[in-house]
Amino acid sequence: MTVTLEQCAELLRDADRILILSHQYPDGDTLGSASGLCRALQKMGKRARCECADEIGPHYRYLYSGVEPDQFDPAFIMSVDVADSKLLGRLESAYAGKIRLAIDHHGSHVPFAEYEYVDSTAAAACEIIPTLLGLLGVEIDSQIANSLYTGITTDTGCFRYPNATPATYRTAADLMEKGADAAEINRVMFDTKSRARLEMERLAMDTMEFFEDGRVAMMEISCAMVEKTGALDSDLDGLSAIPRQIEGVLVGVTFRQRSDGGYKVSLRTQPPIDAAAICSHFGGGGHRGAAGCSFTVPLSEAKQQMLEVIRAELAIR
Amino acid sequence: MTVTLEQCAELLRDADRILILSHQYPDGDTLGSASGLCRALQKMGKRARCECADEIGPHYRYLYSGVEPDQFDPAFIMSVDVADSKLLGRLESAYAGKIRLAIDHHGSHVPFAEYEYVDSTAAAACEIIPTLLGLLGVEIDSQIANSLYTGITTDTGCFRYPNATPATYRTAADLMEKGADAAEINRVMFDTKSRARLEMERLAMDTMEFFEDGRVAMMEISCAMVEKTGALDSDLDGLSAIPRQIEGVLVGVTFRQRSDGGYKVSLRTQPPIDAAAICSHFGGGGHRGAAGCSFTVPLSEAKQQMLEVIRAELAIR
Repeated sequence: MTVTLEQCAELLRDADRILILSHQYPDGDTLGSASGLCRALQKMGKRARCECADEIGPHYRYLYSGVEPDQFDPAFIMSVDVADSKLLGRLESAYAGKIRLAIDHHGSHVPFAEYEYVDSTAAAACEIIPTLLGLLGVEIDSQIANSLYTGITTDTGCFRYPNATPATYRTAADLMEKGADAAEINRVMFDTKSRARLEMERLAMDTMEFFEDGRVAMMEISCAMVEKTGALDSDLDGLSAIPRQIEGVLVGVTFRQRSDGGYKVSLRTQPPIDAAAICSHFGGGGHRGAAGCSFTVPLSEAKQQMLEVIRAELAIR
Repeated sequence: MTVTLEQCAELLRDADRILILSHQYPDGDTLGSASGLCRALQKMGKRARCECADEIGPHYRYLYSGVEPDQFDPAFIMSVDVADSKLLGRLESAYAGKIRLAIDHHGSHVPFAEYEYVDSTAAAACEIIPTLLGLLGVEIDSQIANSLYTGITTDTGCFRYPNATPATYRTAADLMEKGADAAEINRVMFDTKSRARLEMERLAMDTMEFFEDGRVAMMEISCAMVEKTGALDSDLDGLSAIPRQIEGVLVGVTFRQRSDGGYKVSLRTQPPIDAAAICSHFGGGGHRGAAGCSFTVPLSEAKQQMLEVIRAELAIR
């Protein structure tokens, strides 16, 4: 059932031995909201710990500073920033059906918990937690503030994306006053690249091709590049944004080679071009500005097929 | 003399035929504060116009939407975001000595106007103007909001830099509520690259060399690259940030070839390395994290000399 944030506070006030679950392939928001809430519950004298299906990347470890490691048989299981129990990854089998409370901000949230609080106007789960902590009467310290600021800035691309609202900015301002080191967090999250990432950018940009008077840009990420650079998945995050960032480009296409030789396509478009409409021709989908699909044909043919559909879409806009 | 913002409002209330000056090599803040204030003064029924020594780049033109073009013999001359009358460029000779009011946020501000208002706690001149408009009783419309938001986001690197304070975030939130299209402004300012810029990044990254176990990265920007790509100065902005962005790099060095064959060096460092201290060995200077100097010797020798001083600096930290 759907509950209010006040009811979430009541549930947590009465709870102990609390297990907080994050989603697989964890990002700053699911880890920031989990670690921030966990530390706050521990400050309330409760036993609490966090769990995630996948390993936490080194640049996210600071989120857990001040979180006391604890092991216990959980009496209250909850999730943060998890839009669907499937996204619990390998933890799903163990916990699905036993989750008491889900706190999330995804409009696409599929209910799976006994109690559900979903605010899709929030840019991040970390934008919800400060209000919850206020209701719980926990003072936000600098470590909690760092965790919550991290989720807000990573989910909004450092306040760049349309999901960042005035409320988002104000919550961030409050967290900075509680001691969040915004400049350092943003330096680590947005101004730091691994050498493998730098290499990947170079190699991928070398493959950039332009079509339709520069309105379409296509880029390739091959398995050979990944092997050559030793790039991790985290080094590939956001690479597919590059083609559309180029001035005049309305449609940016990134072909990522799969180990089986097929290609996963990421499409990024500017209005009025509909990325989902284009990908739907190939059994894919997504949003207006960002969508995806797959090809099993050779790259040259995949590009041709893609380009034909893009041409048609450009023509009707 | 130094005045309060209330006194600035009084001066402007009594003024007409107001000329607002921006600094040379104009950025989002000097243009955003000038255009936002100009439009507000016009809404008050006053005659006002803006002037800048240099041409305004195409991606800044939207700042002047809603500003009525006007020509008149100015009765009140003021400047915004100008730290020193020298920075008026070719306009200095015409106006220096005649400037009634200077509104600025630079700690390094050198007084040059009859009345001076400098708030060095403001991240941008555009962070000051909303309060001024409140005192003037002008309603901030969406076009004014776009101008002022632009200066705030560009001067803070999209809220990334340490100069962005909670007050900065809250002013931005207020401007979004007045209609500033934050997502679109940030897309244009931070998510758009010219093809020449993309090419420059590729070519420059191809020259990246690492020293001292990856703690030092050196990159080159040659005249040939600029010629090959047809890059404008605006396409080169911020390129020198790339070497230091690489994980593990404490000292990022960019050698930019001058037309006379010499090299202009931009140094970017992470704490505790002092960029200004390193550059001072070569007659240059700057800040702890960003400094510059010049070389007339061949590149290979310049690199050697630079590296020796950097090694010494790394050794004592």
